[in-house]
Amino acid sequence: MEALDYARSHRDAFREELKAFLRIPSVSTQEKHVPDIERAAAWLRDKLSEAGFSEAEVMPTSGHPVVYGAWTEAGSEAPTVLVYGHYDVQPPDPVDLWETPPFEPTIRGNDIFARGASDDKGQLYTHVKAVEAVLQSRGELPVNVKCIFEGEEECGSPSLETFIREHQGLLDADVAVISDTGFLGREKPSIVYGLRGLAYLEVEVTGPDHDLHSGLYGGAVLNPINALCTIIGQLQDENGRITVPGFYDNVRELSDEERDQLAGVPFDREEWLQEAGVVRDWGEPDYTIMERTMIRPTLDVNGIWGGYIEPGAKTVLPSKAFAKISMRLVPDQNPDRIAALVGDQIKALAPQAVAVEVSALHGAEPVVVDRESPMMEAASKAYEEAFGKEPLFVRRGGSIPVVADFRSILGIQTILMGFGLPDDRLHSPNEKFHLPNFYRGIETSILFMSFLSELSR
Amino acid sequence: MEALDYARSHRDAFREELKAFLRIPSVSTQEKHVPDIERAAAWLRDKLSEAGFSEAEVMPTSGHPVVYGAWTEAGSEAPTVLVYGHYDVQPPDPVDLWETPPFEPTIRGNDIFARGASDDKGQLYTHVKAVEAVLQSRGELPVNVKCIFEGEEECGSPSLETFIREHQGLLDADVAVISDTGFLGREKPSIVYGLRGLAYLEVEVTGPDHDLHSGLYGGAVLNPINALCTIIGQLQDENGRITVPGFYDNVRELSDEERDQLAGVPFDREEWLQEAGVVRDWGEPDYTIMERTMIRPTLDVNGIWGGYIEPGAKTVLPSKAFAKISMRLVPDQNPDRIAALVGDQIKALAPQAVAVEVSALHGAEPVVVDRESPMMEAASKAYEEAFGKEPLFVRRGGSIPVVADFRSILGIQTILMGFGLPDDRLHSPNEKFHLPNFYRGIETSILFMSFLSELSR
Repeated sequence: MEALDYARSHRDAFREELKAFLRIPSVSTQEKHVPDIERAAAWLRDKLSEAGFSEAEVMPTSGHPVVYGAWTEAGSEAPTVLVYGHYDVQPPDPVDLWETPPFEPTIRGNDIFARGASDDKGQLYTHVKAVEAVLQSRGELPVNVKCIFEGEEECGSPSLETFIREHQGLLDADVAVISDTGFLGREKPSIVYGLRGLAYLEVEVTGPDHDLHSGLYGGAVLNPINALCTIIGQLQDENGRITVPGFYDNVRELSDEERDQLAGVPFDREEWLQEAGVVRDWGEPDYTIMERTMIRPTLDVNGIWGGYIEPGAKTVLPSKAFAKISMRLVPDQNPDRIAALVGDQIKALAPQAVAVEVSALHGAEPVVVDRESPMMEAASKAYEEAFGKEPLFVRRGGSIPVVADFRSILGIQTILMGFGLPDDRLHSPNEKFHLPNFYRGIETSILFMSFLSELSR
Repeated sequence: MEALDYARSHRDAFREELKAFLRIPSVSTQEKHVPDIERAAAWLRDKLSEAGFSEAEVMPTSGHPVVYGAWTEAGSEAPTVLVYGHYDVQPPDPVDLWETPPFEPTIRGNDIFARGASDDKGQLYTHVKAVEAVLQSRGELPVNVKCIFEGEEECGSPSLETFIREHQGLLDADVAVISDTGFLGREKPSIVYGLRGLAYLEVEVTGPDHDLHSGLYGGAVLNPINALCTIIGQLQDENGRITVPGFYDNVRELSDEERDQLAGVPFDREEWLQEAGVVRDWGEPDYTIMERTMIRPTLDVNGIWGGYIEPGAKTVLPSKAFAKISMRLVPDQNPDRIAALVGDQIKALAPQAVAVEVSALHGAEPVVVDRESPMMEAASKAYEEAFGKEPLFVRRGGSIPVVADFRSILGIQTILMGFGLPDDRLHSPNEKFHLPNFYRGIETSILFMSFLSELSR
């Protein structure tokens, strides 16, 4: 197949382009990186043009721009694929734990290390290069392809839903494809058919209206850090079961069949412990490790701060304490309802001697997609041919809110065609992408377009 | 009295000197300020010389230097007073909450605002200027005076005990005087006869060995922040009573007489709430606000941090969480024993899925001094004459570890002759010193020397 030959002979060039993409520190949650976000969007648009997309533009939103591309000359009988990805990245901190700088992509062995390597620049770029390979070698694609690459995924996609609503015609498609998930293991290509949702809160506890000397006031003024810890300590039991009233009301229990099928997915506990960097697992005893991370809701403090946090001792009774707390959700929990329930419980647990404010930062609906569609079959065959192995069907613990938006607004299913590996260290120092998966991901995308056009005939 | 006249006519000059002292950012807990510490020590030594002390030198310790001064020509029958103070200051952060920069002393109304204004540069300087006033106006002091000004008080005086042990002859005296405490209120001059002690711990909780994506691992890996909060939440009950086994074993209950006497000290609850900046007080219901802050032990989290603490949302399950926790102690609690008890309990409360390390930063013995000595009488009379009011005898919640060292090593009592006010915002942004108390503090020191020499005859 000429397109596969093209992709194989251009691996070095594709990798160098990816490096250039990764050098742009497009951190979406930090104001100072706005110029980098804009630079990354313009860079990506140029690459879409060069690949052969007939349309390629940077489109404004109320936040960071969307990069849109389209090649729709396959005709109206051919299926249309909508590829979603995000060109923004997580903040790189703690920066001092990176072996090489987060925005100086470095190859060690078969991996490329940089913030965004796997999440999601490296993965989205597989589809750009697949389209290039087919167009440059054959002059046309077997299907219509549209791309929507956003710049706000890591801050909760605040503008995306509106953008999709306002551009339904432009985005009209038969199926969506997202490469922002991963394999179960190096030799375990996987298609994700379920995702957890998210509710994210920020909590601010105020005690005295200014910092006090803990010697002079300690014992008669409630310390907001002590109060915050006491509140957080009461949100869960020792096994992680969340004690907020009503929290589990809408959790759909899995069928025995689906639990059996998940239990049949190969899982190496020792390997998992090593990847997680822990000595022992933890959590609800009635569920397996895989179930706890895929089909059960959670509550994690993502950040906490207050008082004196420099070296040495300062005997301060601080005015304020803060925490960022997020809940991972499963069908059919609703992010807004859970944010309200947990927020109310935090306030209910707060002693009268402090003031507590809770704000919801963003949410995402949990989703489960159909495993039996022809599109899923095309994806499965593409993986099998590119990686030499049938893919596993799994659920995943993270959230990709756009999947719910595509379903509700555009009426289409999403294939989660991920190429990451479990040790990619997403959101952590030393994030990397496995280069063989980058190259074979491009091939998978080429093959998917081909199988999809056949199956749809 | 010539010395009082001298002090009154030199008020402007003294205030300008204090400003120069306050401009030196002698923060002892931060490595970057070591040159400022040295500059402050040299400046103070020069001022001792200029005041007329016959000895004045900067003496090395294993940490920051001690400034020593002496005038001992009053003869061996005259009593010898050892004045202690500290020229180091707390870190100024959070710097953005200061109305004027912390190291640019600014006068607003009758107050001088700067880090260290009250704690302790302004207060220790009263004695330097008192000695100058007497020596420059009469040519001699009625008593022998020695000064020891340290540069490590705000980091727990790690070198001071050794310094005192190694220089017992040099420091030999009949009574110590420390001005590092305050009045109960603007018109309520007070002599402190009891101080709380301190035990200060730093806690490090480790979950996974690197930061994880909370979506991929949440639910099966224990989050170290959640664990830390749960531990801290269990160290106290809702009224602040500490639940660590054995914590109260050595707490000496006050006699009814002493409680009655404390209850007789004027206390304005509304004024206290306003100074503390709180809407309501908090703490053990069987004790008054004053008792909770003076005669009861406490546990305060002075700082906490972990995970993502920048603006926006990051869905991280962090590797580590930290807290600084200190306990204020009362007679006869021992700092080392309490540090061990609380540290052990923190470890006992820690779930197996995290690793916890506890280190003790420093401690201070609680002390109570004799209220009936001739020295105390001299001090009381000096206050009465300088401020026009008999001083109140109170206990205080803060810690001054050197008081216990003077008692155990030099065998002398300490008079806590403080001139601060409750709204001085020690350790907080906008620290200030009330200038009338600076001027009258100098007069009190002049009068104390005079009364002490009379009473000792």
